[in-house]
Amino acid sequence: MRVVRTSAEASLRADRWRAAGLSTGFVPTMGALHEGHSKLLRVARGECDRVSASIFVNPTQFAAGEDLAKYPRTEEKDLEICARAGVDLVFIAEASDIYPAGFQTWVTVEALTRPLCGRSRPGHFRGVATVVAALLSIVRPHRAYFGLKDYQQVKVIERMAGDLHFGTEIRAVGTVREPDGLALSSRNAYLDPAARKVVSRIHRALSAARDAVIRGETRVSEIEGILARELRPGSDLEMEYADVLSAATLEEFSDGIARRSPDGILLAIAARVGGTRLIDNMVVPPEFRE
Amino acid sequence: MRVVRTSAEASLRADRWRAAGLSTGFVPTMGALHEGHSKLLRVARGECDRVSASIFVNPTQFAAGEDLAKYPRTEEKDLEICARAGVDLVFIAEASDIYPAGFQTWVTVEALTRPLCGRSRPGHFRGVATVVAALLSIVRPHRAYFGLKDYQQVKVIERMAGDLHFGTEIRAVGTVREPDGLALSSRNAYLDPAARKVVSRIHRALSAARDAVIRGETRVSEIEGILARELRPGSDLEMEYADVLSAATLEEFSDGIARRSPDGILLAIAARVGGTRLIDNMVVPPEFRE
Repeated sequence: MRVVRTSAEASLRADRWRAAGLSTGFVPTMGALHEGHSKLLRVARGECDRVSASIFVNPTQFAAGEDLAKYPRTEEKDLEICARAGVDLVFIAEASDIYPAGFQTWVTVEALTRPLCGRSRPGHFRGVATVVAALLSIVRPHRAYFGLKDYQQVKVIERMAGDLHFGTEIRAVGTVREPDGLALSSRNAYLDPAARKVVSRIHRALSAARDAVIRGETRVSEIEGILARELRPGSDLEMEYADVLSAATLEEFSDGIARRSPDGILLAIAARVGGTRLIDNMVVPPEFRE
Repeated sequence: MRVVRTSAEASLRADRWRAAGLSTGFVPTMGALHEGHSKLLRVARGECDRVSASIFVNPTQFAAGEDLAKYPRTEEKDLEICARAGVDLVFIAEASDIYPAGFQTWVTVEALTRPLCGRSRPGHFRGVATVVAALLSIVRPHRAYFGLKDYQQVKVIERMAGDLHFGTEIRAVGTVREPDGLALSSRNAYLDPAARKVVSRIHRALSAARDAVIRGETRVSEIEGILARELRPGSDLEMEYADVLSAATLEEFSDGIARRSPDGILLAIAARVGGTRLIDNMVVPPEFRE
């Protein structure tokens, strides 16, 4: 496994693979790798001749007051995980390389970034879309892999990569969960034992709402009621959103009825426990509804 | 010379060139080719193993009320010019291909798009940056060629391509002029003989201001005064701007003194004659000032 620290070298190596006719997979990360990332790397490894990963805690996707400074950095362990997963190339990026002096270009995605995290994290998806555009330009992979825990991010990146003709297939990989259902996240490292117990309500709420939808519940107000009831917001858990949207467009169901659609129904939660913000979601595919 | 009409085929052909280790040059155009474009094509031909050009009247860079509908379309003649210039591949693009259904991704460049045409054509540079990002993604050229008549556009694209790591060198090619100095432009086709005579004042104004700078004039107000005086705005010519800016940053000289800088001094004019809007500029390099 080769480790490079400049975009120029990452680009050079990736170009050679393409020129040699090899299929290439890319897993962009912010480091602090966990089993969710390992799954992305393994899926990429299974589908592509060459796999690269990037590690870059992207400053432009953090708003002022968010956890950029304290975001976990575990480079040595990350490299071990990459090596074990059979990664060929790790690009550890520097902000001054990704964002050259005088940087002033932004990639924005419109409708898909308005609801959910777009509302509470202004500028977040602009930062995500911009850095992923830059990384895809540098690495030019045939496929790039993202985790479905960040469902809205996957939709935004899919749209961006298609709209700007990157020619990269965006592959969405299922969420990895703890035994009690908590979605793996680098931010879980912030949780003390008490908080760790509280956050299991997120998955419980999603499961209960999903079960209700499968049993035939279509009223958005009822489904959102179940999400909120099971989350039990209070002094130990602040509910940021608990929404029921079209999984295809992230739009609300205008008449309050969660309808079948080719992409199903998205149940999405963001909650704060102590200083930690966590998100999770489930998509109920249409075939489960009859 | 091969003509393709889908981004998929353009991308495939360009990929093959790269895989074969050939250097590739790309000349994006809106068609209605003139000698200015021919020069771009010739320069590309001289520098690259393979040359592609695109023809696409990009709707998103026209504001409502601008000349999108009447913009000259001369496909057959354009293809002849490309063939004569030794172009290998012409990509004639469709809006529904470049902007797929549900398109919602924009590339914006900030500071460089605020002055000059950015002020009078809201959304113009967003459209330019977005379509050029898409075309560079499709064609992935080693070099792309743009005319210096659109100086601000060159700066915006240079910035965008660097900021997003396209790995394409942006090459700026000198303006081609009529014997009386009028910069070649597809929009010159709109001019009737009377208007044609009037617009020669644009080049005269730029030349007079440039000469004053070379003689040592540094006061921005004086230089702008010369531009305006020689343009003689009135019922036959409306002056949109006649500005003196840093050629590097397109910023005003805050103390009103046009200073030496590594990129020189930009003299830029936009004017309307009849229904036709024309722009032109000159850059006075620093060495001419002493």
